Amino acid sequence: MIVVKKFGGTSLGTLDRIEAVADRIIEDIEQKGESPILVASAMSGETNRLISMAHQLAPHDRSPAYDMLLASGEQVSISLLAMALHKRGQKARPLLAFQLGIRTDALPSKASIESIQTDSLQELVQQNIVPVVAGFQGMDAFSNITTLGRGGSDTTAVALAAALGSDICEIYTDVPAVYTADPRLVPTAKPIESITFDEMMEMASLGSKVLHARSVELASKFNVKIHLRSTFEKREGTWIVSPGGNMMEKPVVTAVTHDPNTTVIKLFPTPDKPQFLANLFSALAKKGVIVDIITQSQSPEGQRLAFSVQSDDRQAALDTIQGEITEATKISLMDDMAKVSVVGVGMQNQFGVAARFFRALASQDIPIHLVTTSDIKISAVIEKPQLEKAANHLHQEFGLEG
Amino acid sequence: MIVVKKFGGTSLGTLDRIEAVADRIIEDIEQKGESPILVASAMSGETNRLISMAHQLAPHDRSPAYDMLLASGEQVSISLLAMALHKRGQKARPLLAFQLGIRTDALPSKASIESIQTDSLQELVQQNIVPVVAGFQGMDAFSNITTLGRGGSDTTAVALAAALGSDICEIYTDVPAVYTADPRLVPTAKPIESITFDEMMEMASLGSKVLHARSVELASKFNVKIHLRSTFEKREGTWIVSPGGNMMEKPVVTAVTHDPNTTVIKLFPTPDKPQFLANLFSALAKKGVIVDIITQSQSPEGQRLAFSVQSDDRQAALDTIQGEITEATKISLMDDMAKVSVVGVGMQNQFGVAARFFRALASQDIPIHLVTTSDIKISAVIEKPQLEKAANHLHQEFGLEG
Repeated sequence: MIVVKKFGGTSLGTLDRIEAVADRIIEDIEQKGESPILVASAMSGETNRLISMAHQLAPHDRSPAYDMLLASGEQVSISLLAMALHKRGQKARPLLAFQLGIRTDALPSKASIESIQTDSLQELVQQNIVPVVAGFQGMDAFSNITTLGRGGSDTTAVALAAALGSDICEIYTDVPAVYTADPRLVPTAKPIESITFDEMMEMASLGSKVLHARSVELASKFNVKIHLRSTFEKREGTWIVSPGGNMMEKPVVTAVTHDPNTTVIKLFPTPDKPQFLANLFSALAKKGVIVDIITQSQSPEGQRLAFSVQSDDRQAALDTIQGEITEATKISLMDDMAKVSVVGVGMQNQFGVAARFFRALASQDIPIHLVTTSDIKISAVIEKPQLEKAANHLHQEFGLEG
Repeated sequence: MIVVKKFGGTSLGTLDRIEAVADRIIEDIEQKGESPILVASAMSGETNRLISMAHQLAPHDRSPAYDMLLASGEQVSISLLAMALHKRGQKARPLLAFQLGIRTDALPSKASIESIQTDSLQELVQQNIVPVVAGFQGMDAFSNITTLGRGGSDTTAVALAAALGSDICEIYTDVPAVYTADPRLVPTAKPIESITFDEMMEMASLGSKVLHARSVELASKFNVKIHLRSTFEKREGTWIVSPGGNMMEKPVVTAVTHDPNTTVIKLFPTPDKPQFLANLFSALAKKGVIVDIITQSQSPEGQRLAFSVQSDDRQAALDTIQGEITEATKISLMDDMAKVSVVGVGMQNQFGVAARFFRALASQDIPIHLVTTSDIKISAVIEKPQLEKAANHLHQEFGLEG
């Protein structure tokens, strides 16, 4: 059976780890009769080293040269992994995007895969040669090397599985599973056996760093089950799958996630122009500032606006706002905020989840500054010193300790 | 005018140096109206770092994975050099071998260039886009990345100039010229303005490390003049050209070269079998031991054989010899030897050069252990402690101080 297996940068971070990965692949071939197709990220630290050189030299250059530079990291890791397999008597072939035919659009630094040729992969597998594919990279219509952005190697792996008609994609990483909460923050957090694509995508956008939303979206589109598991342990990790089955049996909440780098910006009174909000948020988008939760309210004294941004974007946001307001509008800034969220498809079939969420925080005297909900998540912005208490209490409230 | 310019690893060894190279290229475009086509080596140290990883992981692997690994170094340097040009407002396009169409044979780690497509280069030049070509790499008929071996980027540059019908190739390096001797050994050594292809090839094979013999051979074949010069200085360096002109006017000797890593191996008496020499030197060749000077003499007591090898190959040579001789043959080993040579096309028209060479060494009481001559060189193996005296005396004897 053909299985696409993707190994992340930490799994390949040293020569010893590359050897360990090679051992594990050989074992799976011998014991399970698998025909693996491997996808590798750059050795950990390498992509950052390359980005840092580019940043020092020409910080704003996003020409094809930038993508070519970044793509060199995967060229190194797939060559070394193929050599580690050779050393164990296993034929292997490292394959760059141009050799395999991974065609993308021409969007620099965040290209999207348009098509993958799988003939040569099938041929290699038939000859018992293990293909070792460079993740993160593609080639546009002009033979330029492109890269797929953060989490790009996961996307390569899922796209390969989809193109091969394989219904499983294994993603090996340095954590053993997706957890009901970050165990560093919530000590009672436990591994999740199975989670839906939608939940995983919400978690990714709410601060979970285990998987990038884009690869999960692709997996959902082509119904490729992702098995996320540890490179360093044998036990199963978390299956990311389409919902199916009886949704009534699902727990109301699947996980608590958090994002500690949140800044809240409040404007009062906002300029009394009909185009103000549209102009402000267009200007912020243009500067690359991602605005998360937005609330607006009318009072006799004027209109109030509050929204949250990533703390990294704080200064860019302030600079942009200055260009859109007059002296009449006062800006107040709340640094040191955090976002805590609960995610679960079970919410769709359950009333009063929001009330339970608010009550849980209120019972601990934790004030909520901003709040937003969707059909499968509730998020609140709170003060960062209260994050740990909030996350643990929500985790307990929704019975995630098991 | 199209000019191929090759920059070595030391010239691109840091981001600051890459910026300096970019400045110089822009200056030549603006002041001389040149249309440059650049060829770059990997940043200094990078290729050795990659080789060392491969060596630790799988020392004997010479599959396409090994060449792919090594080729990543040039991918980094051409991307960065292109970005440094962009930063200065100069359009540039980094080009890998597969993008340009540098086709080679499939000999791993030391492939030879078979053809180069120049259409895309000409097009880029017409659009005022500077092509920045990855040296050292090619692609075989199976779309595998190949590498050209040591000095490979020089070969890429000369091959490009030849394919473009350009009669000059500039090679920028960390020394300002080819010298009449190594200035570290012979303080009176002076830069050579012009030297023939044949002389340069001899010098390369006799220990001069400035240019690899292979690129000079290619330049000779296609009559591409090489201008070897410093990246860090403006003045002209050394022109490597076809002889032409009046050979009678050439100096008898153009340069003194040396190779300090020489070991002499003597066998006495050699086995009395007709196939012995053929077997011995075949066995040595098979082990990759390069045998340099060989002498053989007959005495009443038996046949004597002496030959020199690179000191690095000493142990491999001894192991091989053991398999070819019996206990009757005594091996004596002379470590700590050196080879000193004089090179010059002028020798062809001059009698008594060898006598002058021997007299010069004899006058300093320097015994010669092995000697070999060709029509443009004389080499002698001497004891290493006498190398400095020998080189300086020969340099003076043949009037190279000017």
